[in-house]
Amino acid sequence: MDTSRSAATARPRSMSCRRRGPVLERAILDAALEQLSTVGWNGLTMEGVAAGARTGKAAVYRRWPSKEDLVADALQAGIPSLGDAPDHGSVREDLYQLCRRMRAAMYSKPGYALRSVLHECDTSTAERFHALILGGVIEPSIRLFEEVVHRGVARGDVRADATGSLVCDVIPAMMMYRSKVCGSEWDDADIAAMIDQVMVPLLRPRAG
Amino acid sequence: MDTSRSAATARPRSMSCRRRGPVLERAILDAALEQLSTVGWNGLTMEGVAAGARTGKAAVYRRWPSKEDLVADALQAGIPSLGDAPDHGSVREDLYQLCRRMRAAMYSKPGYALRSVLHECDTSTAERFHALILGGVIEPSIRLFEEVVHRGVARGDVRADATGSLVCDVIPAMMMYRSKVCGSEWDDADIAAMIDQVMVPLLRPRAG
Repeated sequence: MDTSRSAATARPRSMSCRRRGPVLERAILDAALEQLSTVGWNGLTMEGVAAGARTGKAAVYRRWPSKEDLVADALQAGIPSLGDAPDHGSVREDLYQLCRRMRAAMYSKPGYALRSVLHECDTSTAERFHALILGGVIEPSIRLFEEVVHRGVARGDVRADATGSLVCDVIPAMMMYRSKVCGSEWDDADIAAMIDQVMVPLLRPRAG
Repeated sequence: MDTSRSAATARPRSMSCRRRGPVLERAILDAALEQLSTVGWNGLTMEGVAAGARTGKAAVYRRWPSKEDLVADALQAGIPSLGDAPDHGSVREDLYQLCRRMRAAMYSKPGYALRSVLHECDTSTAERFHALILGGVIEPSIRLFEEVVHRGVARGDVRADATGSLVCDVIPAMMMYRSKVCGSEWDDADIAAMIDQVMVPLLRPRAG
């Protein structure tokens, strides 16, 4: 079906089809995430983003004077939420569900985009995104781990002194490391093995 | 002092100053590591390496037909050895010493070069270096951790079932993650905190 023809018939001025304001902005931000997750930070260009959003370069530059500004807003708008801390009655099950959500976020389009920025930016550019990544990704996930651990302490399946800040880094660190270094995609069995081999022994009460 | 003039006086043919064979090769490989650790994988050029080694581009291309070939050899030749597993009578002290050696390797010139390759390469290029990094860096360090853990099991300060493959990934994962994400430089106190908060509880025998 030739939709463009019927649209032209219905609307005498083609200007009325032009996306404006929030709709066009959303399309540009989506195109920026798409570029980051395919060609990466180094490959992303304002021209490519404009083409991806089916608009002109001027429409992009009017809103974002530089690639850095555009990417910062695209990441900010796209960062997936991990939701509330899971609560299934055991630290083992709660960590398992939290890891599955982290994996979904890692392999989402904004997740790929975030890692591309983290890995590819030179140090001076990366610093600009650091607060965004810390505040938008790292700190919210640490708060969820802390909540799961504290609930485990209250329930008795986590030792009371497992409250050091480094304990909550172990899972994000393992997920980043094995995905980068070993090419692991963290299937459900990998997640279960990490929890059983590392997190359960690390957290369990000493008198076990 | 004009050394070029006195050298020209002493040696009638300047050709006799030209470095050949292994000496020139070593200079080129060193220059490649230097480039990787300063301008990174994306910034490295054969011209830049030739300039750094004070030789011509042809001398580089004669030995290495591509940037990938040159970098593979430079990494292979430069990967620092971690030595034998430390043996100080406790798993806590052995892990502490091993982490200090890993930190020295991470912040050495070949260490920066390796991470630049790991982080910056696109997937198809990175695959080419993957076997090299696995065989030259990851596997040797895992063997040292395994030896320290097995000695701890024999001595009694490590639980007998702490032999899963994921346990030996925790320290390298934490060191990569916090250096990349939190900008940690892993001073001695950071290393000690990781061992006391994470590794000692993870490894200790259950009957505590």
